[in-house]
Amino acid sequence: MATQGARRLIVQKYGGTSVGSAERITRSAERIAAVADAGYDVVVTVSAMGKTTDELIGLARQVSRDPDDREMDQLLVTGEQVSASLMAMALIDRGQQAVSLTGAQAGIRTTRLFTKARITDIHPERIRRELDDGRIPIVTGFQGITEDLDVTTIGRGGSDTSAVAIAAALGAERCEILTDVEGIYTADPRVVPNARKLNQISYEEMLELASLGARVMHPRAVELGEVYGVPILVRSSFSDAPGTLITRIEDVEVRKNVRGIAHDTDVAKIRIVGVPDRPGVAAAIFMPLADAAISVDTIVQNTSLDGKTDLSFTVSRAEHSRAAALVEPIVPSIGASGLDHSEDLAKVSVVGTGMQSAPGYAARMFRALAGAGINIDMITTSDIRITCIISASQADEAVNALHAAFELDQE
Amino acid sequence: MATQGARRLIVQKYGGTSVGSAERITRSAERIAAVADAGYDVVVTVSAMGKTTDELIGLARQVSRDPDDREMDQLLVTGEQVSASLMAMALIDRGQQAVSLTGAQAGIRTTRLFTKARITDIHPERIRRELDDGRIPIVTGFQGITEDLDVTTIGRGGSDTSAVAIAAALGAERCEILTDVEGIYTADPRVVPNARKLNQISYEEMLELASLGARVMHPRAVELGEVYGVPILVRSSFSDAPGTLITRIEDVEVRKNVRGIAHDTDVAKIRIVGVPDRPGVAAAIFMPLADAAISVDTIVQNTSLDGKTDLSFTVSRAEHSRAAALVEPIVPSIGASGLDHSEDLAKVSVVGTGMQSAPGYAARMFRALAGAGINIDMITTSDIRITCIISASQADEAVNALHAAFELDQE
Repeated sequence: MATQGARRLIVQKYGGTSVGSAERITRSAERIAAVADAGYDVVVTVSAMGKTTDELIGLARQVSRDPDDREMDQLLVTGEQVSASLMAMALIDRGQQAVSLTGAQAGIRTTRLFTKARITDIHPERIRRELDDGRIPIVTGFQGITEDLDVTTIGRGGSDTSAVAIAAALGAERCEILTDVEGIYTADPRVVPNARKLNQISYEEMLELASLGARVMHPRAVELGEVYGVPILVRSSFSDAPGTLITRIEDVEVRKNVRGIAHDTDVAKIRIVGVPDRPGVAAAIFMPLADAAISVDTIVQNTSLDGKTDLSFTVSRAEHSRAAALVEPIVPSIGASGLDHSEDLAKVSVVGTGMQSAPGYAARMFRALAGAGINIDMITTSDIRITCIISASQADEAVNALHAAFELDQE
Repeated sequence: MATQGARRLIVQKYGGTSVGSAERITRSAERIAAVADAGYDVVVTVSAMGKTTDELIGLARQVSRDPDDREMDQLLVTGEQVSASLMAMALIDRGQQAVSLTGAQAGIRTTRLFTKARITDIHPERIRRELDDGRIPIVTGFQGITEDLDVTTIGRGGSDTSAVAIAAALGAERCEILTDVEGIYTADPRVVPNARKLNQISYEEMLELASLGARVMHPRAVELGEVYGVPILVRSSFSDAPGTLITRIEDVEVRKNVRGIAHDTDVAKIRIVGVPDRPGVAAAIFMPLADAAISVDTIVQNTSLDGKTDLSFTVSRAEHSRAAALVEPIVPSIGASGLDHSEDLAKVSVVGTGMQSAPGYAARMFRALAGAGINIDMITTSDIRITCIISASQADEAVNALHAAFELDQE
């Protein structure tokens, strides 16, 4: 047995498809055992099996029109408890020592905001004790416990976030996210056949790619990894491919600045025309949307001309009608002249750290889109991203044109 | 709102069929709400939904040939968590205040003997606090927690036992077991068409009836009720019939002494012939069975004749071959002359408090069986029971003959 000081720790997270059946659990257990046999300490976090969470939500809807949040959490945490205990059994069956731990047992403390709690603190004593005793702790992802012993779930991206938080609390060498894709690609491989898997990517780049539609990992987990400096390896639980390492990348200047093309075809736009350029107008428009919990994505306001401007913003297609209905009565009250809206839009983004510091990327993007006959509706930029809103019907074409223009198929 | 002192508390337990579907949960919630609306404080314990426990065990067997006990408990407790949270949601949906509590949250402390833990202690502070706040606590049955925060299940009859233990800890007026039968009958109504439902029965009588095959409630729960003096009302969750109250009955002399006929057709017998009558022989026979966890039921040893006797005992049919194989090699070593065994037996019992103090019951039982042409293989008695081992093929006939002989169809 290795001495305490020599131990190297890896946290692995297995998602819903990787624990989707007894057979999948058995195969994931083999992977975990291989890491342990290679001399690592391993802590595993698991999601609920495949469709379990949806089935539980379905049951809740059958007994209640509007299920209570606290009770919803009491219900949903069972999904991960089931997969965690099955995973521990499967490991024990192959001669490993393992122990499943609920969020409560693992010391994952959260706020009391049921269904979307935030992790406040991890008390890793129990996990450490199990590791010291030679066991592989299998921790339920997605859940925690309040000071009052009430169980909570931590919302979307919860299991990834749990894994990274545990890795941070234990000072793990890295956090591995085992999923059903082989890593992060330069573009969606379903759209761009010659999209290339990236070996490394920075947290910032991953955040832009993830939040823009390459939904491999939830932004929360990436942010947490960045804050605590936890390297995150995204890899497939179905192959031995090396995956993509999300990490701090210092040598920005020596590598290619564009890392990937992200796109999202679920975009609708609302434009308010002739908005008077005076304080308080933007607040008057967006407060009702915030109150209705409508998530606004891109907001673009042009420079004022004659004290009037146009203000456009995008929402998801599902919230388009609700958003338009909320904004419509505000138009006359703020003295704007009108409102129009359109669905069937998409956004495409070129992402890369340090892009901003090197000139010409925006021009190259616009030229590539123009060359493919694609009209640009809106433009926004961040430090590491240029985004264009275009017609949804041209999204695939745009992604391919940009992928080629930035030569992302080449190493 | 009633003042603290004036509150009357009822604990209700809903079994697997009473929470077997969303629709059943909704109906059970209506029953609970009616009790609350009548001004009672109510604490509810629930079993897992219908076949959930079996399904979870099935999953465990798919990932492990011999699932680890601790992990089995971590897995199985989810069954009651699901039904408890759904029940709380259903109550909240109908305007009640309710809160589900796991064994851990409800303060149900147990030993560390996974899969068959024993309740050591109940810390009812959280349950009381929820009651004080006007909520109906829905507590998961069948489970508890160790000092070390590991979850446990408390074995067969666990949910009933949880309910009675909670009723005892809270000083409840009574514990109601809501199930799929209307109460305790003078005999199995499937065998004796004119079997009569009993309004009241003593704990001792219920113990004899329950352990002898009228499997409405587990003996553990009845014993606990007796120790703490908790009246237990067994009733159907599908009707408003009044049920059977299991309670302390003092006026033994004024009522009929025979209360019911129990029977069990899962009986096999092993007889050892020519056993020398000397100390240590019984231990030599039964220790190997105990070590193999084979449950021995009736044991009969006749008075010694010429220093030799016959010793017979019964086991369940499923354990018959294993038991015979274990005992066979012992026969020569203890100097006995041989062994025979038979399956296809049944036991029928006449049960009633105070029966022993009144003469003639045994004779009446034997006469009734003889009158029906039924041969008696073995006889054993306790203070409140006379049991005969007979041929399984004649069990139904025997039960009907005894039910008639003791006039149990009449009030």
